[in-house]
Amino acid sequence: MHDGKDFALDPRLAGDTHFVGDLQLSRVLLMDDTRFAWLILVPRHANLRELTDLDIATQQRLLSELNRCAHAMQSLFTPDKLNIAALGNVVEQLHVHVIARHMQDAAWPRPAWGFGEREPYAPDARDTRLDALRRALEISGA
Amino acid sequence: MHDGKDFALDPRLAGDTHFVGDLQLSRVLLMDDTRFAWLILVPRHANLRELTDLDIATQQRLLSELNRCAHAMQSLFTPDKLNIAALGNVVEQLHVHVIARHMQDAAWPRPAWGFGEREPYAPDARDTRLDALRRALEISGA
Repeated sequence: MHDGKDFALDPRLAGDTHFVGDLQLSRVLLMDDTRFAWLILVPRHANLRELTDLDIATQQRLLSELNRCAHAMQSLFTPDKLNIAALGNVVEQLHVHVIARHMQDAAWPRPAWGFGEREPYAPDARDTRLDALRRALEISGA
Repeated sequence: MHDGKDFALDPRLAGDTHFVGDLQLSRVLLMDDTRFAWLILVPRHANLRELTDLDIATQQRLLSELNRCAHAMQSLFTPDKLNIAALGNVVEQLHVHVIARHMQDAAWPRPAWGFGEREPYAPDARDTRLDALRRALEISGA
């Protein structure tokens, strides 16, 4: 699937993340925060805010891609719990978080959103993580 | 669909909510907190923790029920944003939040989870809200 006409990634999402790759529907992003293994999926259609803005077939495609990301996160990070959430109180563009949470992580058991300050990846750690995610998701970063 | 064998609602979920009704898969609960219009869906199968514990057909059923709840919330409360999330850091039993958020609500734009103290409904307000939700969802509370 090509990008939907007029799709443009929200600049705040772009600024807080690294590009992992594109699935059929969704752009997959890595939150630039070493405290959490944290993906964000953004369906590449213009003018989406709510899950209910997608027709049911496209929602099912998103669900399938969420499963793919969830399994990759479980395989790579063996989380104690996945947090899967579409919030959008700050960034309106529809996006879904998939966060691998651990009982030892900085925010546990609180939500990761708005918790303290991001701790950006150093370039080598970022590249290592992106490579691992692309392999687990079987997508290219091109 | 009857309840899955050995399904039992987590006692913390039961203690924090009022029973709205049962959809085909999910029990629908109202968070006992007047600060937010807040539903929780609990798939009635035993021993679920993660979305990925459900097969894809059952996930699609859950997605359908989430749509039904989302549309009911949009119709009743005209939220500025829906928050739809499966977290489970505190209560392990798989449950999905559908929260109608408003820019004027107590926690905006922060997440509602763990924010301040619940403000329980008075009995009349609770019954009025439960009736409205059951009508919008077309379910009985029996």
